[in-house]
Amino acid sequence: MGCLECLKDYFMGFWDYETPKVMVVQDRKLGVIYRAVQCLVITYFIWHVFIIQKAYQETEDRPDSSVYTEMRGVATLGDSVLDTTEYVQPSEGGDIITTILRREVTHDQRQGICAEDYTVPNAQCTKDSDCVRGEMDFEGHGQKTGRCIPYYNYTFKTCEIKTWCPVEKFAAIKEAALQKAINFTVFIKNSILFPKFKVLRGNIKPNKMKKLKRCHYHPETNPYCPVFSLGFIAEQASETFSELCKSGGIIGVVINWKCDFDLDPSKCKPAYSFRRLDMRKDPSTSGYHYKFAKYYDKDGVEYRTLITAYGIRLDVIVHGNAGRFSLIPTIISTVTAMTSVGICSIICDWILLTFIDKNKAFSDKKFDDTSNEPIQPTTTSPTLTSFGSNHSDLSDGVPL
Amino acid sequence: MGCLECLKDYFMGFWDYETPKVMVVQDRKLGVIYRAVQCLVITYFIWHVFIIQKAYQETEDRPDSSVYTEMRGVATLGDSVLDTTEYVQPSEGGDIITTILRREVTHDQRQGICAEDYTVPNAQCTKDSDCVRGEMDFEGHGQKTGRCIPYYNYTFKTCEIKTWCPVEKFAAIKEAALQKAINFTVFIKNSILFPKFKVLRGNIKPNKMKKLKRCHYHPETNPYCPVFSLGFIAEQASETFSELCKSGGIIGVVINWKCDFDLDPSKCKPAYSFRRLDMRKDPSTSGYHYKFAKYYDKDGVEYRTLITAYGIRLDVIVHGNAGRFSLIPTIISTVTAMTSVGICSIICDWILLTFIDKNKAFSDKKFDDTSNEPIQPTTTSPTLTSFGSNHSDLSDGVPL
Amino acid sequence: MGCLECLKDYFMGFWDYETPKVMVVQDRKLGVIYRAVQCLVITYFIWHVFIIQKAYQETEDRPDSSVYTEMRGVATLGDSVLDTTEYVQPSEGGDIITTILRREVTHDQRQGICAEDYTVPNAQCTKDSDCVRGEMDFEGHGQKTGRCIPYYNYTFKTCEIKTWCPVEKFAAIKEAALQKAINFTVFIKNSILFPKFKVLRGNIKPNKMKKLKRCHYHPETNPYCPVFSLGFIAEQASETFSELCKSGGIIGVVINWKCDFDLDPSKCKPAYSFRRLDMRKDPSTSGYHYKFAKYYDKDGVEYRTLITAYGIRLDVIVHGNAGRFSLIPTIISTVTAMTSVGICSIICDWILLTFIDKNKAFSDKKFDDTSNEPIQPTTTSPTLTSFGSNHSDLSDGVPL
Repeated sequence: MGCLECLKDYFMGFWDYETPKVMVVQDRKLGVIYRAVQCLVITYFIWHVFIIQKAYQETEDRPDSSVYTEMRGVATLGDSVLDTTEYVQPSEGGDIITTILRREVTHDQRQGICAEDYTVPNAQCTKDSDCVRGEMDFEGHGQKTGRCIPYYNYTFKTCEIKTWCPVEKFAAIKEAALQKAINFTVFIKNSILFPKFKVLRGNIKPNKMKKLKRCHYHPETNPYCPVFSLGFIAEQASETFSELCKSGGIIGVVINWKCDFDLDPSKCKPAYSFRRLDMRKDPSTSGYHYKFAKYYDKDGVEYRTLITAYGIRLDVIVHGNAGRFSLIPTIISTVTAMTSVGICSIICDWILLTFIDKNKAFSDKKFDDTSNEPIQPTTTSPTLTSFGSNHSDLSDGVPL
Repeated sequence: MGCLECLKDYFMGFWDYETPKVMVVQDRKLGVIYRAVQCLVITYFIWHVFIIQKAYQETEDRPDSSVYTEMRGVATLGDSVLDTTEYVQPSEGGDIITTILRREVTHDQRQGICAEDYTVPNAQCTKDSDCVRGEMDFEGHGQKTGRCIPYYNYTFKTCEIKTWCPVEKFAAIKEAALQKAINFTVFIKNSILFPKFKVLRGNIKPNKMKKLKRCHYHPETNPYCPVFSLGFIAEQASETFSELCKSGGIIGVVINWKCDFDLDPSKCKPAYSFRRLDMRKDPSTSGYHYKFAKYYDKDGVEYRTLITAYGIRLDVIVHGNAGRFSLIPTIISTVTAMTSVGICSIICDWILLTFIDKNKAFSDKKFDDTSNEPIQPTTTSPTLTSFGSNHSDLSDGVPL
Repeated sequence: MGCLECLKDYFMGFWDYETPKVMVVQDRKLGVIYRAVQCLVITYFIWHVFIIQKAYQETEDRPDSSVYTEMRGVATLGDSVLDTTEYVQPSEGGDIITTILRREVTHDQRQGICAEDYTVPNAQCTKDSDCVRGEMDFEGHGQKTGRCIPYYNYTFKTCEIKTWCPVEKFAAIKEAALQKAINFTVFIKNSILFPKFKVLRGNIKPNKMKKLKRCHYHPETNPYCPVFSLGFIAEQASETFSELCKSGGIIGVVINWKCDFDLDPSKCKPAYSFRRLDMRKDPSTSGYHYKFAKYYDKDGVEYRTLITAYGIRLDVIVHGNAGRFSLIPTIISTVTAMTSVGICSIICDWILLTFIDKNKAFSDKKFDDTSNEPIQPTTTSPTLTSFGSNHSDLSDGVPL
């Protein structure tokens, strides 16, 4: 053959269509198994992959989210009145907001020397030599002066230290818990932007802003009113509010957006859930508290009011997940579905060749054997010769 | 056959190579369709999957990011000068930073009794019996004493309450907006670490730090100068600065790192985008503000200056996405591509068997039928017999 | 044929089982290649996909996490004692916590007029006309009054400005670094909740809370004691503590949860790693510092103490990843594995048809050719005729 003809042959061959040869087995048992498996796989793909998991959609699960929180409510504490400026920190209204429910206040601390807290290890003493001058105990509150002095107006003695005086343990006034804070509300404004789909959604209806001051959240009647009382939050998180007043706690407010933009975007509503996030298996030591101070100046000397605050910290966590029809994931999912249907063949083949009766006969039909011996182009029917060449029971009877 | 021989047979068979039998159809129309579909699929995979989506890369999309923010600028407000210490909160320079643009200041509040804000529901009264002693209105500012008193120097009356006096509504001084803050700059240092690739990238060039004090960001001329004026940010977010001065707002600063580590890592530059994040369909009620207080002590009595601050909150959001060549995703994508090419066969088969002329002839060739009747090993050519055994129009003519 | 029969035929055909015809090639070389490739692919799937990547598991990688941080330790600074209330900000104990290691304190600043910092551009002057009245330099500290005055007790002159006086550059007292802070500890309580699996895990053992005050973290002996000294953190992040005292720095504390819930959940322990997050190629300008002020009142005049704080900012970053056996990913991975094994056939076919000797003979067996000429139903054996109709070297010799 000339090279031109060979090229032409190749070019002609390029446009040939190749398709695998298929053997049809008229076995009802096998057919039923085959169709059943096929049906299962197709059902799985249509139901689970396409309807439940929406595999035909392109998804976005890392939206840009913005949270603004604001506490509301006033309460009396003894003679004074606490408003949000007093009991909420930090004031900027980010995704973490704390409410003070109980305070231990140490008034008028100043730098000076006084007796160490007696609960600190090695703080108790009987004579000056028990207190090493200049030593700082890691768990203590300051530097030892080397003297052993009476613990304020008590009879026992502790080491004298240089620190903010008096120490908190002695001077702190434990205020009553703000039980009325159960009615305080937190307003959580959240807007979420899916950059891929260019859709911005918020958890309030713009024209309903004025009503927001008085409403309370309810999943059915008031889904667009993100105002939650602390009592509601504690209840949803399966906590008792009075317990939280004692030791404090961290509660996660999870806002979950699950949006299907094939439907109207306005159908995409947030779901709220509340969970206690700090460990609480051992109630005596768990909880949430922090210390801060207010500083002031008296005749040039710096004083501070030290406050140990027990309260609820709300951590607002936003999850977003959106999807919209897209060609590419649809194609990929369809291809995967078709491939999986193809796997049925493998399973049924295995059954066919292993369990079904007459499998030897089937396998002779399915497998076309090419023995290693050189194929003789001169034989009358090479196709037939090689057929069954090592399945002697069949080929023996073939007359050539 | 002995068991040894049978094992030997099995062992020999194990090393046999099995390949599906293929039928070549010399139909130009079908061949063109087949090749066209194949070509489409291959083009899609090479273009979209490999070039656009870089499916040959292993990716990392949850990098560790660190943000440091710092505001710069001073402005006069009446007689006094405001520097960053006054108008920026919180001071630590994390990923959320607020700038105060307008303040409503209530000086010298202290715990006491005074008239309730007249805008509170049920606060207005004409006689003492309108005010229930001990009652606390949820939207009010304190606890009612039971008396009805004149509202400061006005003629109408409201209930007297125990609270921080005087109430903000009456005593707040509305300061002018800091219009000059349009020139304030925010410096946003961001470094990002991809743990999987062990690459650390920052948004400033280390040796250019000294120039940073005076530069301004520009995507082309100054990409490594992350200093943005508030005016630039407002403009990019399609907001008017004077509007923001009035009611405040939350603006997201999105830093997007899209890195291809098959190229030089130094080519991986951040892209900045700015978006208003709080809802603003109803301008009268949207915006951003918060309250905080400065406390001081006068002769042992605690006073506070209450400040309601309207301003811009910048939420810095960092997205990172990096990829680098890896063998495993390359193999997986190639396998998927090949499988998808295989799907072409299924489509063309369907066309072949449904639409193309001579399909009956093709299907006889493609489908090798095994009828349910027992196969007789004694026939001369079992292969031929079964061929077309239920496609009688063809097999009828076969002489055995 | 009647339509009823045709429907019956279709119905019967529906239950037929179709399986591709396979050619067995008894070529040892090819068989070995085929089995080797198959073995490689299967090994890859079993080892890498199933054992290493645990592809049979359903995974969750965006858990809800809660971080609570608390610093501990006291240190002396000159005559005074600093406790956590002084050197830790913010006080609420969130996922970002800063420790002040060195301070520059400017006492008793108040609104007034004084000389501008001489390092500000254009601040130095010789005569009043050098200072434009009312001008505000962007990098300056206030508004120029138009006078040129001596720089405090120095002989050179700078423009007089209206600002908080005196300016920090002149009046700031640089305190010594808190070298002893190397022993300060930070307690990081972290709990993590995988909503999909409803498993809550914490990094402390509930019944060991009392011991937590004294323990230090060690990966082997004390994995459930998340108390880290600043020295340990600096060392792990490959930083020298004295360097951090000078210029400050941002260190990321990465807590990595990798959980396999097929095992006992209690085996899921966090791993801690520490990395410097701010850029530090140019030590003279990098680092971490921030400014804040304490306000007080002297006879009705507001004073402030301005503090520039250099320190360590710890950013706690939590990564979580959990998996548990699930049917669906198992099926999908198995299908992918089987498909990939199928790809071996394609590779071997290509070798078979390209490199192996006798490939012409093989291809004649593999490819069953259907020529374009009309099939004559009258030929005695149409199947044989078309067989090899364009592979003339074979079909020529077939006697019909």
